[in-house]
Amino acid sequence: MRIDLDLSTDPSDYAFSHRVRVRFAETDAMGVAHHSSYVAWLEETRVEYLRHLGHPYAGIRAGGHDFAVLELFAQYRRSARFEDVVTVHTRVGSVRGATFQMEYLLMLDDDICALAATVHGVVDPTGRAVRAPGWLRDLLGRA
Amino acid sequence: MRIDLDLSTDPSDYAFSHRVRVRFAETDAMGVAHHSSYVAWLEETRVEYLRHLGHPYAGIRAGGHDFAVLELFAQYRRSARFEDVVTVHTRVGSVRGATFQMEYLLMLDDDICALAATVHGVVDPTGRAVRAPGWLRDLLGRA
Amino acid sequence: MRIDLDLSTDPSDYAFSHRVRVRFAETDAMGVAHHSSYVAWLEETRVEYLRHLGHPYAGIRAGGHDFAVLELFAQYRRSARFEDVVTVHTRVGSVRGATFQMEYLLMLDDDICALAATVHGVVDPTGRAVRAPGWLRDLLGRA
Amino acid sequence: MRIDLDLSTDPSDYAFSHRVRVRFAETDAMGVAHHSSYVAWLEETRVEYLRHLGHPYAGIRAGGHDFAVLELFAQYRRSARFEDVVTVHTRVGSVRGATFQMEYLLMLDDDICALAATVHGVVDPTGRAVRAPGWLRDLLGRA
Repeated sequence: MRIDLDLSTDPSDYAFSHRVRVRFAETDAMGVAHHSSYVAWLEETRVEYLRHLGHPYAGIRAGGHDFAVLELFAQYRRSARFEDVVTVHTRVGSVRGATFQMEYLLMLDDDICALAATVHGVVDPTGRAVRAPGWLRDLLGRA
Repeated sequence: MRIDLDLSTDPSDYAFSHRVRVRFAETDAMGVAHHSSYVAWLEETRVEYLRHLGHPYAGIRAGGHDFAVLELFAQYRRSARFEDVVTVHTRVGSVRGATFQMEYLLMLDDDICALAATVHGVVDPTGRAVRAPGWLRDLLGRA
Repeated sequence: MRIDLDLSTDPSDYAFSHRVRVRFAETDAMGVAHHSSYVAWLEETRVEYLRHLGHPYAGIRAGGHDFAVLELFAQYRRSARFEDVVTVHTRVGSVRGATFQMEYLLMLDDDICALAATVHGVVDPTGRAVRAPGWLRDLLGRA
Repeated sequence: MRIDLDLSTDPSDYAFSHRVRVRFAETDAMGVAHHSSYVAWLEETRVEYLRHLGHPYAGIRAGGHDFAVLELFAQYRRSARFEDVVTVHTRVGSVRGATFQMEYLLMLDDDICALAATVHGVVDPTGRAVRAPGWLRDLLGRA
């Protein structure tokens, strides 16, 4: 799968949201959250969404699946600062065979903080690509 | 600028390389380097390249410029493990007005570990976009 | 000030608690939360406690104070794993002139996950040591 | 073992040194290296020392040992900044049964940047404490 960079800037297009407060450890000498910190927020939001759906990651692994990260894209718009609360909206953007794309809209109050997408490969415990589970495909297009 | 995902997989297309050894702190419970760790390696390589060119980042800031990260893309291919040495090749891919793209090819021995790109905005101390310095434009197409 | 390693293992000795869920990015190749991750949890808990007390860190800085970390101690007992919820209990342990000690008890359900302490120096914007603010001294011995 | 905070400030008391350049990702909004970054530098230096001794960590694990971190202490003296090179001196401070202490002196040019110590437990693959290997005991007192 090739990552799709055409991401919605409308929060109502997303299925789930999670709030993250910027840690001091996540800031850098420019006085803002370092761009690598966002990657951990995307992951935390993804994991929270899966738990919310009744699929905590431990259960997914117990069921014989792992969701490896294959591609990552982020576009940074407004800097987040220490103690800011970032609302991360997410959804499953597409599913094709053994891969799926998650999409993210990060908001700071009414401003867009960032847009992002991750492409994941569904693998079994030996690392072999396997078809995405049905419940994941069922999330497609859900807002 | 829109990030360009068409990245060369040939090390000889890149102008500079830097070696990074995977820290234990950078690994995750899958036993490999976490995908967010790569973002710090790209940055470290970028900074080493600029220093190698006679433009340590402190000098760039003293000259009134900052290179904010606007976009980030990474494609993960072969996992790096604790104590692995990753060779990060880099080059300036394009320069347009106040933005430029850096490109990266990460190798593990003869295998491609990852491909990546970052788009940067040149800003003055007040955060306003300014034209990229001439020495940066001169790097274009250099391998 | 010399850090005091004599830390209470009784949650009821602490004034405030904050829950942290272990991120996947915080785990390492041993399958547990990396020991450096705890340092960010201590800081997050400290900041939450200050906000809870009506002293968000931005206000402290606006009031002309910074709380630099001078010393750090941590004792690791039971490993935390991905998605575990760690409850971090904290209190002000002592205040002497321009320095103060914060103490932490990290619990995983009914087990002690870790004990920790940080010593901070109160400095003004120029980095000079200044007397700890009165409201901080008033917290002493509060459980 | 209880961590011993009596650490030498003389580089010639240490057996090995390793240089670390501060990453931008490791800085914080105070403009200096965040105090949690030092923990990764200690670990990187420890691993380099073991490799230098002919005991890369992979070999230690293959030999049936793991060195879990039981305690950590750091005292911060002079702040390190982005692109600074920190020289981390290290040695084995003491070995007792299944635990040993590593000690660290971090220098910025001729100034002490930080002092640190870590206590490790030698465990077998099942997590049970086992006696430290002979080659580790032989390092004691070496400078």
